[in-house]
Amino acid sequence: MRSATELAALLRNRQVSAREVVDAHLDRIERLNPAINAIVTLDPDGARAAADAADAAVAAGEKVGPLHGLPVAHKDTHATGGMRTTWGSPLHVDTVPASDELVVSRLKAAGAIRLGKTNVPEFAAGSHTVNPVFGTTHNPYRRGLSAGGSSGGAAAALAAGLVPVAEGGDMGGSLRNPAAFCNVVGLRPTPGRVPTWPSAMGWSPMQVQGPMGRTVADVALQLSVLAGPDSRVPIALQDDGAGFAASLPVELPGLRVAWAPNLGGRIPVDPVITAVLTSTVQVVQDLGAKVEEDCPDLSDADEVFRTLRAWIFEASLGDVVRRSPDKVKATIRWNAELGAALTGGDVARAEIAHTRLYERVIAFFDRFDVLLAPTTQVLPFPVDCEYPTEVAGVPQRDYLGWMRSCTLISPTGCPALSVPGGFSPDGLPVGLQIIGPPGADRRVLEVGHAIEQATGHGQHRPVLPFPEAA
Amino acid sequence: MRSATELAALLRNRQVSAREVVDAHLDRIERLNPAINAIVTLDPDGARAAADAADAAVAAGEKVGPLHGLPVAHKDTHATGGMRTTWGSPLHVDTVPASDELVVSRLKAAGAIRLGKTNVPEFAAGSHTVNPVFGTTHNPYRRGLSAGGSSGGAAAALAAGLVPVAEGGDMGGSLRNPAAFCNVVGLRPTPGRVPTWPSAMGWSPMQVQGPMGRTVADVALQLSVLAGPDSRVPIALQDDGAGFAASLPVELPGLRVAWAPNLGGRIPVDPVITAVLTSTVQVVQDLGAKVEEDCPDLSDADEVFRTLRAWIFEASLGDVVRRSPDKVKATIRWNAELGAALTGGDVARAEIAHTRLYERVIAFFDRFDVLLAPTTQVLPFPVDCEYPTEVAGVPQRDYLGWMRSCTLISPTGCPALSVPGGFSPDGLPVGLQIIGPPGADRRVLEVGHAIEQATGHGQHRPVLPFPEAA
Repeated sequence: MRSATELAALLRNRQVSAREVVDAHLDRIERLNPAINAIVTLDPDGARAAADAADAAVAAGEKVGPLHGLPVAHKDTHATGGMRTTWGSPLHVDTVPASDELVVSRLKAAGAIRLGKTNVPEFAAGSHTVNPVFGTTHNPYRRGLSAGGSSGGAAAALAAGLVPVAEGGDMGGSLRNPAAFCNVVGLRPTPGRVPTWPSAMGWSPMQVQGPMGRTVADVALQLSVLAGPDSRVPIALQDDGAGFAASLPVELPGLRVAWAPNLGGRIPVDPVITAVLTSTVQVVQDLGAKVEEDCPDLSDADEVFRTLRAWIFEASLGDVVRRSPDKVKATIRWNAELGAALTGGDVARAEIAHTRLYERVIAFFDRFDVLLAPTTQVLPFPVDCEYPTEVAGVPQRDYLGWMRSCTLISPTGCPALSVPGGFSPDGLPVGLQIIGPPGADRRVLEVGHAIEQATGHGQHRPVLPFPEAA
Repeated sequence: MRSATELAALLRNRQVSAREVVDAHLDRIERLNPAINAIVTLDPDGARAAADAADAAVAAGEKVGPLHGLPVAHKDTHATGGMRTTWGSPLHVDTVPASDELVVSRLKAAGAIRLGKTNVPEFAAGSHTVNPVFGTTHNPYRRGLSAGGSSGGAAAALAAGLVPVAEGGDMGGSLRNPAAFCNVVGLRPTPGRVPTWPSAMGWSPMQVQGPMGRTVADVALQLSVLAGPDSRVPIALQDDGAGFAASLPVELPGLRVAWAPNLGGRIPVDPVITAVLTSTVQVVQDLGAKVEEDCPDLSDADEVFRTLRAWIFEASLGDVVRRSPDKVKATIRWNAELGAALTGGDVARAEIAHTRLYERVIAFFDRFDVLLAPTTQVLPFPVDCEYPTEVAGVPQRDYLGWMRSCTLISPTGCPALSVPGGFSPDGLPVGLQIIGPPGADRRVLEVGHAIEQATGHGQHRPVLPFPEAA
């Protein structure tokens, strides 16, 4: 299975046509997607027409973008002009946005060819991809297990080779958790690195969008076209994105690495995950990195995340919940109700604690270049489980409980990359989270690339079709 | 009266010593400050010692900063290590911070010499500088009239020649209003341009700190050392500040200028102010700028500002008000009570409207390079008036009413510079507000410099001592 980076070079050099690439992926989707249900809206005709136009542009010697001719599928919570965008909700089964949102239009401008949309949990809430419109996405490594979420369709599509490029969004792990479950790569960038537009609350750093891919270099290539300022986005970082496409030097010797197998004792983690990642971290150490077990003080990160998430849910979905309570899943109703009960003072206290957390994390990165941690606390679980109610034997208070390996990191403002970290004894993927100080997106990519090269875990692709689906 | 820029050059070239400069300013403070009460804490011995050290550094050929040897007075709401910082509150009469906050330490690092602190309203609330600790600051252009606020002591000290460099802060006009009242220059920078640290709510763009000076070039020089990233501040802009020290080209021809004498009909303005500024804007047009009367749609700016201000007041002062209600002025109690009544939903709705406002303003600046508007709606008023209750005959709903020429601009995220705009027939200063799109701090400085050069209004300094104080 070729990487997006390799395919882009072949396309640029006319060793392969966009039409051939698109047709090959459409064939593969036809053959494999029914068993995993990763892609939920498909536009073969539109994609073929765009591929032909892309080939004509190359033939005419036009200047083309870095992703020219590469098929992409967009997360179904991201508005695609003229293409159904459901948010996984029965309320939006027939919603067709008039225009692309920024993450979509930037990929289009870079030359990517839109094949369709990837599955999500209802309104992207939670990290298991199932919704009443399209049903469940299955893990390409084992049918019957979760692909994670909320960018679960994207991760599964990448792992199964249905698309070389996919994107997602992340408030509480939605770019990282599915990458871990499906053995691909997902980057939660520094807020503002990939400007979100339109956005209800333009100054909030909680919800971000970002790239996913089969390799770290693919994620970096995509980031090079997703990143960069947009005057409409107040928190947009001003650096141009192009630098992310430069090759990623492998430099582990001397790197100051903190390893936090359970985030400083804050989270239970399946011991299988700890064992797998401990040996991956040993490789990092063997390659010359200075690894110490340490973790920033994440006090209050739980409360900050839970308060701001509930506040944002109420602001974005409160009216929907009140209008159509029976058309929205219970966990969203619960979260919107929590949000509706918040006072201004509650939100202010969360913002104040948020600021203190940021400062502690910044100080931590004076001593370390990166922080390594598990991306998930559990292995992929059966699809008919709505969410794990216990982790390593510890009962969880609610549906957010099992996601804390990611949710505790989100409010720190740090870029966090999930890379393949190895496999459980029975062959399920484990993700390693690489966290850097705010702004250091390039550094986490470099470290991720080095680990990917050293371990080769990302090269073990699922064998498809599934035995039972063949 | 020399500008800070001129003085800095003389100091650098050893044509004058820091000790001479400090002594001259201390003399002037001794002579003139009692009548205006701009500087409320003074450290002559510390300043003289620092000046001697500064001179020794130059003599030893050490590399010195851009403000080397220039006296500075800090706003009394900004923490100064080892120097009393009262916030104008009886609760802090004896508060001596252990260390400098960032705006103070950056000026020190640039070589400025701390003389003392400038007066503020109690907790910097409101735009008239009076408090129960130090009393009232008088306008150097006329004793008995307000110097504006909340950076009123700073503006008055600059106008009276007590210091060449002073800084301030601005949530609802505190860098602009006093600049207008005292015929000096004040810049509310783009949020994040001058990082605030420490800050209770690090992501909030409402409260900013910034430079004040007697000339636009002085403000730009100071900005060159105040601006630049700080890793502890999540919204800090990443550009280095040094570029702001470059000379400011005068380029009015072709400039697309919107002129909003009453912010699109939203605010009453004293007709004297409108008349004065209309003739200043005529000068801008005569110099080749394309001037059109227009204004961005500032719908909801009032509600956004009032909600977020109350929310921030409650978060920062709510506990103080509840603990010591009789030690806090009524307008702060009122504002904290408004804040305490806010729900999370109220704050979310304000953030959503805030984002829409930002987008409308960004779109407006596709058509215009800068927006010109009055800095204040009224001329300096008698010091015994707590706040104007009517403006141009229109009754105001509360103590924030008369400040809307500034408060409506704050939530837009735009940099806004107040420059001398002319004088009323009886000699009171009028400020012209120059507003640019977010990030365009340099552009508003360039336009301000051009207007300053063309009109010369900033050269009319007050004649001191006051007749009655002589």
